[in-house]
Amino acid sequence: MRFAYLGPQGTFTEAALRSLPEADGAEHIPYATVPAALDALRRGEVDSAVVALENSVEGSVPTTLDELATGEPLQIVGEVQLPVSFALLVRPGTRYADIKTVASHPHAQPQCRRWLDAHVPDAEWRAATSNAEAAQLVADGHYDAALAGSFAAARYGLSVLAEDIHDVADAVTRFVVLSRPSVPPARTGMDKTTVVAFLGEDHPGALLEILNEFAIRGINLTLIQSRPTGAGLGSYLFWMDFEGHVADARVGEALMGLRRICADVRFIGSYPRADRVRPEIRRGTHDADFTEAAAWLTAIRAGHS
Amino acid sequence: MRFAYLGPQGTFTEAALRSLPEADGAEHIPYATVPAALDALRRGEVDSAVVALENSVEGSVPTTLDELATGEPLQIVGEVQLPVSFALLVRPGTRYADIKTVASHPHAQPQCRRWLDAHVPDAEWRAATSNAEAAQLVADGHYDAALAGSFAAARYGLSVLAEDIHDVADAVTRFVVLSRPSVPPARTGMDKTTVVAFLGEDHPGALLEILNEFAIRGINLTLIQSRPTGAGLGSYLFWMDFEGHVADARVGEALMGLRRICADVRFIGSYPRADRVRPEIRRGTHDADFTEAAAWLTAIRAGHS
Amino acid sequence: MRFAYLGPQGTFTEAALRSLPEADGAEHIPYATVPAALDALRRGEVDSAVVALENSVEGSVPTTLDELATGEPLQIVGEVQLPVSFALLVRPGTRYADIKTVASHPHAQPQCRRWLDAHVPDAEWRAATSNAEAAQLVADGHYDAALAGSFAAARYGLSVLAEDIHDVADAVTRFVVLSRPSVPPARTGMDKTTVVAFLGEDHPGALLEILNEFAIRGINLTLIQSRPTGAGLGSYLFWMDFEGHVADARVGEALMGLRRICADVRFIGSYPRADRVRPEIRRGTHDADFTEAAAWLTAIRAGHS
Amino acid sequence: MRFAYLGPQGTFTEAALRSLPEADGAEHIPYATVPAALDALRRGEVDSAVVALENSVEGSVPTTLDELATGEPLQIVGEVQLPVSFALLVRPGTRYADIKTVASHPHAQPQCRRWLDAHVPDAEWRAATSNAEAAQLVADGHYDAALAGSFAAARYGLSVLAEDIHDVADAVTRFVVLSRPSVPPARTGMDKTTVVAFLGEDHPGALLEILNEFAIRGINLTLIQSRPTGAGLGSYLFWMDFEGHVADARVGEALMGLRRICADVRFIGSYPRADRVRPEIRRGTHDADFTEAAAWLTAIRAGHS
Repeated sequence: MRFAYLGPQGTFTEAALRSLPEADGAEHIPYATVPAALDALRRGEVDSAVVALENSVEGSVPTTLDELATGEPLQIVGEVQLPVSFALLVRPGTRYADIKTVASHPHAQPQCRRWLDAHVPDAEWRAATSNAEAAQLVADGHYDAALAGSFAAARYGLSVLAEDIHDVADAVTRFVVLSRPSVPPARTGMDKTTVVAFLGEDHPGALLEILNEFAIRGINLTLIQSRPTGAGLGSYLFWMDFEGHVADARVGEALMGLRRICADVRFIGSYPRADRVRPEIRRGTHDADFTEAAAWLTAIRAGHS
Repeated sequence: MRFAYLGPQGTFTEAALRSLPEADGAEHIPYATVPAALDALRRGEVDSAVVALENSVEGSVPTTLDELATGEPLQIVGEVQLPVSFALLVRPGTRYADIKTVASHPHAQPQCRRWLDAHVPDAEWRAATSNAEAAQLVADGHYDAALAGSFAAARYGLSVLAEDIHDVADAVTRFVVLSRPSVPPARTGMDKTTVVAFLGEDHPGALLEILNEFAIRGINLTLIQSRPTGAGLGSYLFWMDFEGHVADARVGEALMGLRRICADVRFIGSYPRADRVRPEIRRGTHDADFTEAAAWLTAIRAGHS
Repeated sequence: MRFAYLGPQGTFTEAALRSLPEADGAEHIPYATVPAALDALRRGEVDSAVVALENSVEGSVPTTLDELATGEPLQIVGEVQLPVSFALLVRPGTRYADIKTVASHPHAQPQCRRWLDAHVPDAEWRAATSNAEAAQLVADGHYDAALAGSFAAARYGLSVLAEDIHDVADAVTRFVVLSRPSVPPARTGMDKTTVVAFLGEDHPGALLEILNEFAIRGINLTLIQSRPTGAGLGSYLFWMDFEGHVADARVGEALMGLRRICADVRFIGSYPRADRVRPEIRRGTHDADFTEAAAWLTAIRAGHS
Repeated sequence: MRFAYLGPQGTFTEAALRSLPEADGAEHIPYATVPAALDALRRGEVDSAVVALENSVEGSVPTTLDELATGEPLQIVGEVQLPVSFALLVRPGTRYADIKTVASHPHAQPQCRRWLDAHVPDAEWRAATSNAEAAQLVADGHYDAALAGSFAAARYGLSVLAEDIHDVADAVTRFVVLSRPSVPPARTGMDKTTVVAFLGEDHPGALLEILNEFAIRGINLTLIQSRPTGAGLGSYLFWMDFEGHVADARVGEALMGLRRICADVRFIGSYPRADRVRPEIRRGTHDADFTEAAAWLTAIRAGHS
C-alpha cells in the first residue's frame, strides 16, 4: 500500500495519515500540493491519498473541494479529525525579542492571530506554501519563526519556543482518505455521505428544493459549502456532507431526488464517521419502511389493494 | 354487465349512468342509498356502481367519501361530470300561487335557495330522502312541488313548471364509476388518482408533509377534503384527488412517501379525467428522469461513478 | 339579551345554548333553519346565535360554514362541545317490533346506522328537516320512531324506547356562539382563531404556502375544511381553525401573510377554546420575540446596528 | 475623504477603488492586510475602505467575510465588480525559458493554473502575501516571475511578458465599499442586502427555515456561504446576499423572521447592485401589499371586519 499526502514531511496531513491503522507499515509519499497528491492517486502511482478538507476555524479547504468536485473523480473512503495546535518554531537560541518575521501557510495565520498579537506584536507575518516549508525557510535563515506542528521541529533542526498555540479552544481539522472510484465501504450505521450538487443557473429555488429532499426524509446535513463553478458570479455548486450511507434507502431516494432537480450531482463517497455518532433515524425512514411502502405500491399497481 | 346506481329512477345519478358508453345495453339497478348500492357491488350482485362524489356548490358527498374511505375497499375506475340543473315539478294544473311546500333532497335546497326566494317566497321547504322520492311525494299529494331533474317528470306523472333552476351558473356534479379492487385502468396521460390518507393524531404537521410529497414532484391536487375518522374531534382523514396515474413514477414515489408518513393510506383508484385535461409535467419528474436517477444510484452503489 | 338557535325546541342546539352561562335568564328564540337564525342576528332581532359547526362523526356542517364564509359577516365569539347521544322516541306503547319507519335529520342517520341495523333491522329511514320535526312527525302519526335528544320526548309527548344511541364512542358536536362583527373577546392564552381563505384559481400551490405561513410560526391547525366557492369544481375556500388569538403577534403576522397570498381572507373570530387546552408556543414566536425583532429592524434601518 | 484599501500599490483592490466616482480626488491609503484596512476604518483614520469579497473562480474571501461577520461592526455601502485578468511580470530581458519560479498571492495561482501548465510547465509556484508583494520579490531577484495586474508593472520596474491570463473566461472579482455603521444608502429599486445568520447548534433544521423565510416572500438569494464560527466543526454562520433593500417591507419582515429563528443575525448592509439588475417582485410582496395587510389586521383586531 502506498499513501500520498500533502508534504513536505512534518505537515499536519502527515500526522493525520500516521493516525490511520491501515497506513501502518505502508509507504507514505509526500507531494508538494493537493492537486499533485490527487493526480498521483488518479494515475495509480499510489493507492490512497490523505488531504485536509475542513478546519473548524478557517472553514473548508477550497483546493480540496474543487479538485474533488470538478477534477477527475475520486472517492472519500474515510475521515480523520485532529485537534488544531501550532508550535512556534525557531532556530536554537532565538528569543521572542529577536522575532521580526513569522512564516506559515496562509491558513495558519488567522488561527493564531490573537496569540501573535499578544506575544510577538511587532513581528510581520510572511506567507509560505506550507507550514513545513515555513520551517525550512526559518532553518535556512530567511525568516525568524514558523508556525507549524511541534513534530516538525526535529525534522528541520529547530526549537519549540511555544506550544499549543490556537486562538480558539477545541479547534479541529478534518482530513479525508481518498481512493479511486470503487464500491463504497460497507455501512456501519455511523456513516457520512458526501455529494456535490451543481445548480443550473435558471433554477434559483433549487437550494431550497435540495434541502427539502433531505428534510422530508429526516436526513441531517453536517456541512454545506457553496463554491463558484467558475462560470461567473452566481453560478454555484454545493458541497454537502450528511448523515447516512448511500446504501440506506432514505439516502438513496434523496440522492435520486437531487439527481432529478440539479443540473448535475457527483457522488463523492460514503464512509464511517470519525466521531462515531449514530444518527437518530426518523420514524417512517428506516429501510424497512421503504421496503414496506414499495411492496404496497407494487400491490396496488397489481390490483391487490 | 350490471350497474348499480342511487335510485329511485329519475335521479341525477341515473342520468350520469346513462351517459356512460359502457352502460349502453347493460342492466341498470337502482338502490335506495349509496351504501346499499356499494354493498351490492361488494357482494358481487352487480359489476359496477355509479354514485355522486362532489358537487361544485354543495361540496363533497360525505356518505360516498366515508364509504370509500373506510368501508370494505372498492376502486374508482372512471368519472362523469354533469351540469347541475333542477326543474320544479308539480301536479298538472298547479300554479306558482298554489305552492305552499317544496320538497327535495337536502343537497338540492341550498343550490336553489335564491331562486325559491324569488319565485315562491312563501313556500316552505321539506326534506326528502332523494329528489325522486320528493317527486313521488308530490305525485301522492303530500307536498305541492319538488326540485328534481326534468327527466323525472314523465316517470311520476308530473308537469315541469320551471326548468334550468340553479343559483350558481356552471355548477356541476361529479360522479364516479366504481368496481371491486382490480388492476387500475391503463394510463391515458390525462388521468387522475385518488387516495385517502389517515393522519396519526400524534403527528400534527403531517398535512404539510403530505402536501410537500406532492409539491416536490410537481403533482397538483384537484381536491382535498378532510373528514373526521369518527375517533374524536381532531382526528382526520384527508381525501385527495390529484393529477397523474399510479403507474407514473412521480405518483408512485409520492404515494410511497405518504405511506411512510401516514398512519395509513388507502388507494382509491387511477382513472381517466372527465375533462381530458393533460397536466403539465414539471422538468425532472418524467418517468425517464426517475429511470435515469435510479440507474445512476445503482451505478454509484456499485462503484461506477 | 336575546339568543337565536336552530329550532324547533328540543334540538341539540338548544341544549348547547342552555349550557352557556351567559344565556341563563336570556330569551331563547328558535328559528327553522341555520340561515334564518343567522339572518335574525344580522338584522339585529337577536344579540347572539348558537349553531352547530362540526361533528366528530359527520364532519363540518356545510350550511354553517358557507353562511359564515360567504354570507354577510358574523363573528364567532365562543364555542361549546356536547357529547353526541341520541334517543329513540316513540308514541307511548310502541314496541321495537312495531317500528317500520324511523325519521331523523339526515345527519343523525349515519351516526346511528349500526345501532339501527342491530335493533330495528327492518325499519326504513325517513328524512326530516330537524330531529325535533322528526319527533313531531312521530307524534302526528306519520312515522313510527324518531332519533332525537331524549330531552325532546316530553315536549312532544313521546316515550324514550332507547337512550345513549351512537355508533361511535366519545363522539361530540361542536357549536359556535356568534355575534355581529365587533372587537374579539380578550385573549385568555387558551384561544382558537378561525379564518376562511379564498384561493385564486390561478394559484394551485397556495394551500402549501398557507400551511407554511402557519408552520414557520409554530401555529397548529385544529381544523381544515375545503368547501367549493360555487364557481366551478376546483375553486375552493379553506375554513381553518388554529391555536392562538388574533391579538398574538405570531397569529397577526401569519394572517397578514395569508392576506397577501390569497385572493381573499375573511376573519371569522378569536375565542376561548372549549377544551381549555393551552398551546405550546414554539421558541422565537412569543410576542416578546416579535417585539424584539421589530425593535432590531427599526434600529438597523436607522443605522444603529 | 480618505479611503483605505488592501495594498501595496498595484493591487486589484486599488484598481477597484480607482473605479469609484466618489474616490476621485480622495486620498487612497494602502494597508498590508484586510484586517489592517478595516481597523483603520473602525478607528476613524479613514472614512471608507475597499476590500475584495468574492471571486467567481476562487469563491468568497474568507478574511473579509470573517472580519465583517464577527469583527467590530462595519457596513457595506456599495459594490464594484472587476474582470479577473492577470499579467505575467518579469524583470526586463527574462524569457519564458528562464522562469523557474512564479510568485503570487495564493488566490491567483488556481485561477491561472492551466495557463501556467501550458506556458511555463517546469516553473514552481511560490506564495506571496499579495500579488504586488510578488512583483516586489521579482524586482528584488528572489523569484523569476509574478502573477499580478498589468498596472503593477510600471510601479515595480518590471516587464509584461503575457497579459489577459485567466483559466476561466468572464471571471470577475467583487469588491465592497465599507463605512462605519450608519443609515443605509437610499433604496434605488436595484439593491442588494447582506446579512450574517448565526445558527444555534441545537437547531439543525434552521437553514431550511431561513431559506423558507426568503422563499415565502419571493426574495432570491445571490450568495450563500457557510463559515465556521470557530466553536467547533458543525457550528456555522451563513453569509447571505439577497435581492432588495432593508427598507423594503418584504425584506424587513424576512429579517425579523431570521432574527427570531437564529441565535444571532448581523445586518451588514443594503446597497445598490453593481449589475443594476432590477429584481422581479412576486405578487403579494410589494410594499403596498404589506401596508394593505397591516391595515386589514388593524381593522379586524378593532372589530371592523
